[in-house]
Amino acid sequence: MPLSQTSEGVYAIAPTPFHEDGRIDDVSLDRMTDFYAEAGCTGITVLGIMGEAPKLEAQEGLSIATRMIRRAKSLPIVVGVSAPGFAAMRALTHQVMNEGAAGVMIAPPPHLRTDDQIVGYFRQAIEAIGADVPWVLQDYPLTLSVVMTPGVIRRIVEEIPSCVMLKHEDWPGLEKISALRKFQREGTMRPLSILTGNGALFLDFEMERGADGAMTGYAFPDMLADVVRLSKAGDRDAAHDLFDAHLPLIRYEQQQGVGLAIRKYVMKRRGILASDAQRAPNIGLTSKAIEEVEYLLSRVGRIDRRALLAA
Amino acid sequence: MPLSQTSEGVYAIAPTPFHEDGRIDDVSLDRMTDFYAEAGCTGITVLGIMGEAPKLEAQEGLSIATRMIRRAKSLPIVVGVSAPGFAAMRALTHQVMNEGAAGVMIAPPPHLRTDDQIVGYFRQAIEAIGADVPWVLQDYPLTLSVVMTPGVIRRIVEEIPSCVMLKHEDWPGLEKISALRKFQREGTMRPLSILTGNGALFLDFEMERGADGAMTGYAFPDMLADVVRLSKAGDRDAAHDLFDAHLPLIRYEQQQGVGLAIRKYVMKRRGILASDAQRAPNIGLTSKAIEEVEYLLSRVGRIDRRALLAA
Amino acid sequence: MPLSQTSEGVYAIAPTPFHEDGRIDDVSLDRMTDFYAEAGCTGITVLGIMGEAPKLEAQEGLSIATRMIRRAKSLPIVVGVSAPGFAAMRALTHQVMNEGAAGVMIAPPPHLRTDDQIVGYFRQAIEAIGADVPWVLQDYPLTLSVVMTPGVIRRIVEEIPSCVMLKHEDWPGLEKISALRKFQREGTMRPLSILTGNGALFLDFEMERGADGAMTGYAFPDMLADVVRLSKAGDRDAAHDLFDAHLPLIRYEQQQGVGLAIRKYVMKRRGILASDAQRAPNIGLTSKAIEEVEYLLSRVGRIDRRALLAA
Amino acid sequence: MPLSQTSEGVYAIAPTPFHEDGRIDDVSLDRMTDFYAEAGCTGITVLGIMGEAPKLEAQEGLSIATRMIRRAKSLPIVVGVSAPGFAAMRALTHQVMNEGAAGVMIAPPPHLRTDDQIVGYFRQAIEAIGADVPWVLQDYPLTLSVVMTPGVIRRIVEEIPSCVMLKHEDWPGLEKISALRKFQREGTMRPLSILTGNGALFLDFEMERGADGAMTGYAFPDMLADVVRLSKAGDRDAAHDLFDAHLPLIRYEQQQGVGLAIRKYVMKRRGILASDAQRAPNIGLTSKAIEEVEYLLSRVGRIDRRALLAA
Repeated sequence: MPLSQTSEGVYAIAPTPFHEDGRIDDVSLDRMTDFYAEAGCTGITVLGIMGEAPKLEAQEGLSIATRMIRRAKSLPIVVGVSAPGFAAMRALTHQVMNEGAAGVMIAPPPHLRTDDQIVGYFRQAIEAIGADVPWVLQDYPLTLSVVMTPGVIRRIVEEIPSCVMLKHEDWPGLEKISALRKFQREGTMRPLSILTGNGALFLDFEMERGADGAMTGYAFPDMLADVVRLSKAGDRDAAHDLFDAHLPLIRYEQQQGVGLAIRKYVMKRRGILASDAQRAPNIGLTSKAIEEVEYLLSRVGRIDRRALLAA
Repeated sequence: MPLSQTSEGVYAIAPTPFHEDGRIDDVSLDRMTDFYAEAGCTGITVLGIMGEAPKLEAQEGLSIATRMIRRAKSLPIVVGVSAPGFAAMRALTHQVMNEGAAGVMIAPPPHLRTDDQIVGYFRQAIEAIGADVPWVLQDYPLTLSVVMTPGVIRRIVEEIPSCVMLKHEDWPGLEKISALRKFQREGTMRPLSILTGNGALFLDFEMERGADGAMTGYAFPDMLADVVRLSKAGDRDAAHDLFDAHLPLIRYEQQQGVGLAIRKYVMKRRGILASDAQRAPNIGLTSKAIEEVEYLLSRVGRIDRRALLAA
Repeated sequence: MPLSQTSEGVYAIAPTPFHEDGRIDDVSLDRMTDFYAEAGCTGITVLGIMGEAPKLEAQEGLSIATRMIRRAKSLPIVVGVSAPGFAAMRALTHQVMNEGAAGVMIAPPPHLRTDDQIVGYFRQAIEAIGADVPWVLQDYPLTLSVVMTPGVIRRIVEEIPSCVMLKHEDWPGLEKISALRKFQREGTMRPLSILTGNGALFLDFEMERGADGAMTGYAFPDMLADVVRLSKAGDRDAAHDLFDAHLPLIRYEQQQGVGLAIRKYVMKRRGILASDAQRAPNIGLTSKAIEEVEYLLSRVGRIDRRALLAA
Repeated sequence: MPLSQTSEGVYAIAPTPFHEDGRIDDVSLDRMTDFYAEAGCTGITVLGIMGEAPKLEAQEGLSIATRMIRRAKSLPIVVGVSAPGFAAMRALTHQVMNEGAAGVMIAPPPHLRTDDQIVGYFRQAIEAIGADVPWVLQDYPLTLSVVMTPGVIRRIVEEIPSCVMLKHEDWPGLEKISALRKFQREGTMRPLSILTGNGALFLDFEMERGADGAMTGYAFPDMLADVVRLSKAGDRDAAHDLFDAHLPLIRYEQQQGVGLAIRKYVMKRRGILASDAQRAPNIGLTSKAIEEVEYLLSRVGRIDRRALLAA
C-alpha cells in the first residue's frame, strides 16, 4: 500500500537497534517492528536522522529497511533516502521501492537558502529518483538550517505530484499547519498529508490545527496513537489530559543530541530493544540522567500505566 | 547591593512595556517592577533579548533601566549591555552602574567560534567596561550560535574575577550544570552563581543539578519562585507537581519568535501590562493562538489558581 | 545632490581614522575626505562595516558623518545606518539626512532566510526611516549570511521606489549583475545603480557585465576610478592591464578580518591617515605581513607609480 | 610510498571526469592521471569536495580511486574519505589502502564548534579507520564552517601520530602557517607537511611562510609546480612574476560554486578532459563567462605560453 495524501495516524521514527559491540541487532529490529504494529502505529519510518542512518554502511541501511519491510507486512514503511548526492539517493530509493517500501523521505541539504534553491533541489532530486515514487518532504529547520515558508512548500507540492506528505518539524510550527490547510481550503494547494515531528512536543495542538497525525520517535508511540485518536474524535480534554501526563518526559526526550540515548533507554526498559547502544559518535546517559528518566517514568505511570516499568 | 556569586532565586527577564503606538509605557513599567518584587523575585534583568533592547534607541534603553532601578529600590537590577561594539557597551555600563544597577549581562556576538575567540572576546569586553563591574555571562547557543564548553566557561570565570554569574541557557544543559558544579567541588573553578533560562523549560531538574535559581521571563515568575523554594527545601515531588502543572504553558511560551507575544499577552491578562504591543519587527498572535493560550491557562488554573484569570 | 538610480563611478568606503589611543582623528578625517575628492571618487560611503561603525558610540558616528558631509561639499555622502533595531536606524537616518547626506545604506540582519523574510525586513525598515530617503541595498552574503536572488532584489526594487542603488557584494556575483541588467532590458525591473564591492576583486569584469562603478575601500581609489573610466570608454585591455597590476595587492587586502589593517596601513603610507589604529576588537599586522605589503607595493609600483611610496 | 610528514610539492585535487550523460569517463581519468605526473605533480588527491565525491555512488568512488592508483604507479594518491558516519569512512579507507593509496584525507563535519568537539571527532575517526593509516587533516572553514585554531591543530597532531599532513585552506591563512611553523621551531609540535589550497590564491606568500607546497586543483598544476620550485630555490621575484601572470585566472577559477565549471572547462580546452560535464546539482558556464575565461587565457598566455590554447 503506497504512501498517499490520505495517510494518517502515527508513523514511528524507528531507531536502529545495535548490539553492544555495534553490530545490527536483527532480533530487536523484528521485535520493534512487531511492537509498532501492536502499538497502533499506521506506519514506520526507517533510516531517518534519529535512526543513525549516516552511521550505517550503504549495504547495512538497505538490509535494515528490507528486513523491516518484510516483517511489517501490510504496515507501510517509509525509508529515509537523504544523501549528499543524487546517485546514492536514487540507488537506495530504487532498491527499497523494489523491496516494497511505501515511499521515501527526503530532507533538504543544509546549504540551501533561497526559495528558488529549495524548490530547485527537490525538482532535481525527483528527477533522479523518478516521478513515480511517493515521497515525504522533511521540513526540519532547527537541525537542517533550511527554512521553508508555507509558500515554498506549496510550490513544491504543486510542482511535484509525487510529494504526498509533509513531515512537519518546524518550530514553532502551529501557524504553518494552519497556513497550509488554508491553502487547501482556498484551493491553491492540493491535499497533502501532514504528520508532525519534534518528538511530539506540540502534538496536542498540532492535531487541532489540522495535522493528520505524528511522525516521530517518542518511546510511547502507543500514547501518541491514543492522542491522535482522541483528538480526531473531538475529545479535546481527554487528549490533553493524556498528553500532559507524558509532557515532562516528552520534553526530556526532546533534548537535542542526548534525546536518542533517552529514547533507546526507555525502549530497552520497555523490553523492545535488547540494548540502548549507539554507534559513535554518540552521547550516553549519565547515572544522574538515568535517575531522572526513571523518576519521570514513575510520575507518568501515575496516569498512564504503560509507563510503570518493572525495575 | 551588587550582584555576586551567591546571588540566587528568580531574576525575572523583564519585557519592555509599550503603548499601542510604540511609545514606552512608564506606568506599566512601574507596575511590572512592583509585581516582580511582590511575586518573590530576587532580582530583575532588563534590556535583554526578550526585552526588545535592540529595538530601543540608546537613550530609551537608559531611561528604562534607570526608572526600574529607582523603582525597585533594594531589588538588584541587572542590565543587558550586549552591543555590536565595546564603546556602546562601556557607555551604557557606566551609565547604569552610576544609576545603581547591581551588574550587567553580556552575550557573545554570533561570529565567535573557537575557545580562544570566546575567551578573548570577554577579556576585551571587561577591559572596556572595567574590572570592577559585576557581570553575568550569557550562554545561549540556540539563539547566539556560540557554543561554550564547561571548560571555556571555567577559563572565563578563572581569568576574569568580575564574572559572578552564569545565565545558563544551553540546550540541552543539565550535564553542563553538573560539570560546572563538579569543577567547583574539585577546586578547579571558584564558586559561581548559576541561574537558568530557556523559559524555565527544565527548571525542575536544573535545580536538582545545582542551579541557584532561574533568570527567565515566563509570565508566572511567582510560580518559578515557588518551584525554586520547594526544590531547595528538598520537596521534590511538590516542586515537580507545581512545575508540571505549568509545563504545557511553559512549553507553549517557549516557542522561538512568537514566545514574547505569548508572554506579553499573559502579562496583560494578569493586569501587569496595559498592552501586549511590540515594536517592529514582531510576530503577533492569531486568534487561534489566543484561544490556545486561554485554554492552557484554564487547564493550569485547575492546579494553580493564579492562572485563573477573569475574562 | 541626492543619490539616484543614475549615480555612478567610485564611492569610496571610508575607514574611520583613529588616533593611537582610540579617539577619532578629525584631521585625518578631513584629509581623507579631501583625498577621495581629488582621487576622482564620485561619492563616499561612511559608517559601513569596514568603517568600524559598530565600534562607535551613537554620537560619535553622527559626528563623523556630519563632519564628512560638510567637508565634502558637493560630493555625495552615503551613510551606513544598519542597526539591530529600527528605532536607532530611523534616528540616525533623520539626523544625517538633515545634515545633508545623499542617502543611506542598509544591510539585512543575519537571521533572515526566506525570500519573504528579506523583502519584509526592508519593507519595515523603509516604513521606519521614511519613503523619501534614497537608500542603497547592501547584498553581502559572505559576511551577512543573507542570500538574495536576483528575483528578490527585483521584488525590493519594484516594491520600494526609494531603493536607488545596489551595493553588489555577492561572491561569485558576475551572473547576478547580468541577471539584473536583463530584468531592466526586459522591462521587469526599473533602472537601478549597481556599484560593486568585495574590495574590487572582480571590478574588471563587473564593469563589463554592466556595473556602474565600485563602492569599495581599496586603498587606491584613484586606480579604481581609472579602471571604471577606461572600462566605460571601451578600452578593455588598458582597463585590465591597470587592474591586473594591482590585483596581487587587491587580493591581499581582500582577506577577511585582517583586510582593514592592510587598508589602513597603506592609507597611512600614502599620507592620508596619521595612524592605522583600529578600535578593539581588531587584528593587527605582523612584521612579516608588513614586509609582504611593502613588497607588493613595490611590485605594483613598477606599473602604477602611485604605489611607489617613500619609506 | 606512503604519505608522510616530509611530503611536499604539488598534489593535484583531481576532478572526476564524466561523459556528457553523467557516466564516468575512464579514458579521461587515465589521461588526467598521466597529465598530472607529467606536469610535475608529486601526488594526486581524489574524491575531494571538488571531485564531486558526494555525487558518486560508493562503488563508483572506489572504482575511480582504484583506477587512478593503478595508473599513477609510483605517484602517491590521497583519497578523500570524509563521510557522514564512521562506518562508511572506515570501509572506503580500508578498500583504498588495500589498493595502494598513500593515505586518506578527512574533513570535519560542519556541526563541530568547540575545540574539544573538533579534537574528539578526529580521535573517533581515527579509532574507526585505524591508527596505521596516514591521513591529511583538511582545514577549510569557508566551506565546512569549522574553525580550527593553530592550537587545535597542534592538539590533533600531537595526539594522533598518523596525522602527517595539513591541507591548509583557511582564509586568511598566512599567519596560521607561521604559527604552526613556530610551534615546530619551539618544539611544541612535531613536524607536519603543510600543503595549501584555496585554488592557490595565496600560494606565492604561503610558500614564503613555510608551506611545503600546494594541494589544490587550479587547471595549471604545471605552473603551481614551477612556483613551488622557484620559491623553494629562493627566486622570489621569478616566483611572483609567474604567479602574478596567472592570478587573474586563479582568482576567476576560485569563485565558489562556479569554480569547478571553470576548471573543467580549462582542462577540456587543454585536452585533458573530453567533456566538462558535471553531475547535478551543478552550475554551468554562460557564454559570457566562457568569453571571459578565453580572454583571461589569452592574457595569461602572453607570459606563460602554456595558456595559449588553440581554439
